[in-house]
Amino acid sequence: MNKRVGNQTVRLESKPRIISTATIVGPKEGEGPLRDYFDTILQDDLNGEDSYEKAEKSLLYSVITAAIKKANLKEQDINYLFSGDLLNQIISSNYAARDVDIPFIGLYGACSTMAESLGLASMIVDGGFANHAVASTSSHFSSAERQFRAPLEMGSQRPPCAQWTVTGSGAAVVGTEGNFPYVTYVTNGKVKDYGIKDANNMGAAMAPAAVDTIKQHFMDTGRTPDDYDLIATGDLGKIGRKITAELIKDYGYNMDNIYIDCGEEIYDAEKQGVNAGGSGCGCSAVVACGYIYKNLLSGNIKKALLISTGALMSPTASYQGESIPGIAHAVAIEFGGDKNE
Amino acid sequence: MNKRVGNQTVRLESKPRIISTATIVGPKEGEGPLRDYFDTILQDDLNGEDSYEKAEKSLLYSVITAAIKKANLKEQDINYLFSGDLLNQIISSNYAARDVDIPFIGLYGACSTMAESLGLASMIVDGGFANHAVASTSSHFSSAERQFRAPLEMGSQRPPCAQWTVTGSGAAVVGTEGNFPYVTYVTNGKVKDYGIKDANNMGAAMAPAAVDTIKQHFMDTGRTPDDYDLIATGDLGKIGRKITAELIKDYGYNMDNIYIDCGEEIYDAEKQGVNAGGSGCGCSAVVACGYIYKNLLSGNIKKALLISTGALMSPTASYQGESIPGIAHAVAIEFGGDKNE
Repeated sequence: MNKRVGNQTVRLESKPRIISTATIVGPKEGEGPLRDYFDTILQDDLNGEDSYEKAEKSLLYSVITAAIKKANLKEQDINYLFSGDLLNQIISSNYAARDVDIPFIGLYGACSTMAESLGLASMIVDGGFANHAVASTSSHFSSAERQFRAPLEMGSQRPPCAQWTVTGSGAAVVGTEGNFPYVTYVTNGKVKDYGIKDANNMGAAMAPAAVDTIKQHFMDTGRTPDDYDLIATGDLGKIGRKITAELIKDYGYNMDNIYIDCGEEIYDAEKQGVNAGGSGCGCSAVVACGYIYKNLLSGNIKKALLISTGALMSPTASYQGESIPGIAHAVAIEFGGDKNE
Repeated sequence: MNKRVGNQTVRLESKPRIISTATIVGPKEGEGPLRDYFDTILQDDLNGEDSYEKAEKSLLYSVITAAIKKANLKEQDINYLFSGDLLNQIISSNYAARDVDIPFIGLYGACSTMAESLGLASMIVDGGFANHAVASTSSHFSSAERQFRAPLEMGSQRPPCAQWTVTGSGAAVVGTEGNFPYVTYVTNGKVKDYGIKDANNMGAAMAPAAVDTIKQHFMDTGRTPDDYDLIATGDLGKIGRKITAELIKDYGYNMDNIYIDCGEEIYDAEKQGVNAGGSGCGCSAVVACGYIYKNLLSGNIKKALLISTGALMSPTASYQGESIPGIAHAVAIEFGGDKNE
């Protein structure tokens, strides 16, 4: 059966369920406006490890195993683990995968990884290839800063458009049965590049990719912003969110009343000194697996569109004069009846 | 319909076809025993670019577009591009994807990427999510050496167990129709770690993962080595191949007469001074898309099992005392009737 809808979208008729999620965040994220939606808030962002990289891996491992436990499943019940992260060679994911007994599909989508992994897990379950699959990702402020920008010890000043990498990790277990929020559509994005070269202006680098995927999702499905209670981009921050909200209007879609950006919501930017907002794979992961999932479960919202956005930034490519391409993947998650249909 | 077979394998009843492949290799690979199976042999491994990273991207872009053209398709006909590579943030794949108009799923599986991408592309086509999908990967000796080991200018001596990263790239177009080799089973592997810490002994790090996936494939499918005309691991080299051939016997399987390693085949180790053989994502990519695919097409072999093997090596993790985990994914490719069934 052909499941394609329009140019870039697939419809998942079997409605693969997100039967559980788990989230963990660092102390800073635990002081932000969404703190009540996270399962675990760390007191110390090293989480008892002796490096930030090992700490990030421990976060990811903890949510993968917690989500499986919440779903009343065992590792053997999970047929695939889809995971990726920001670190070179996705070491958080590789080493977390080493510690669980689950076939592993490693991904790299930068900060688009939550929607990339959730979309793939949902398709694989919908296609009958898995009874259960886990989608997950992580990021850590301190491991990301020293890899992508400068060692924290340098104390570099951050420009107003800079974003703050979220310390956090989220995981979701996708399965075939039960009364849980379910995935209906997946729209995978193309790589878009509008020539941004500033590693401190990720929101602007990612916004065109977000717009491209969102308008394609609407065109493919025939849906409009009115069909959704919530549309959430991953980590554009306040600057990228404004760009996206305006650019999408050129295609005739007005998302003003229902559109949030996970990176803008996760911090109180002024009080917490995070400039343009949060970023990192963990940003849309903990907001999707925490805030959005729990609001779907409780019936506060019925249809959500998650668009995780990735800046495909590379120090090596930047040194060689390249601009920063972006990508965005969208997943429609719904629960409890139709809003407009 | 549930497509699961045993613990870790899926059966693709629709037999997704590999309707075309394309390969390109560097000058050294073009002097090796398999040279006649590659579409393009570079005279200069910079391929007209001003960095090895840009050269690698140009190789990957060239095989993606060549494979699409050989299939008599256009970029718009391809629903997904699955690609990954060895470079940090998979820049070869990201920048190649930027230059094509295809939704992109970024992967990181180190040198397991050819089977990882081909397996996913085949499942996505089999599941009705795509009419056509491209699976691809690349590696480049000079970009890999300076990222993972030492700058070439240092002239470091290479121990006998060291392998030589293949400069090359391969792509395959998977579709639903036509009389072409097809994928019947995909067995995705778990991350295995037996404590190897030597970045110059990748074969030994990967061999246990290869053995785990191969024996699981046999157990899940009920097949034995006799069911295959060719079993090919990705890039274990001569040391890893020997370990694998012996370890698999502990599970009661003897592969002696039909088992090759792509990394051992691609060079004449003694003449070409490559020590234990070839490695890199491009190794199993060009051998699978070149040698194996063409031998299937010509009827020389009817059933092949490709097991691409990845050493999930990270300089950062190594500096922090970690060992090197391995992973292996297997894809069964067949054409022209059954051998034993």
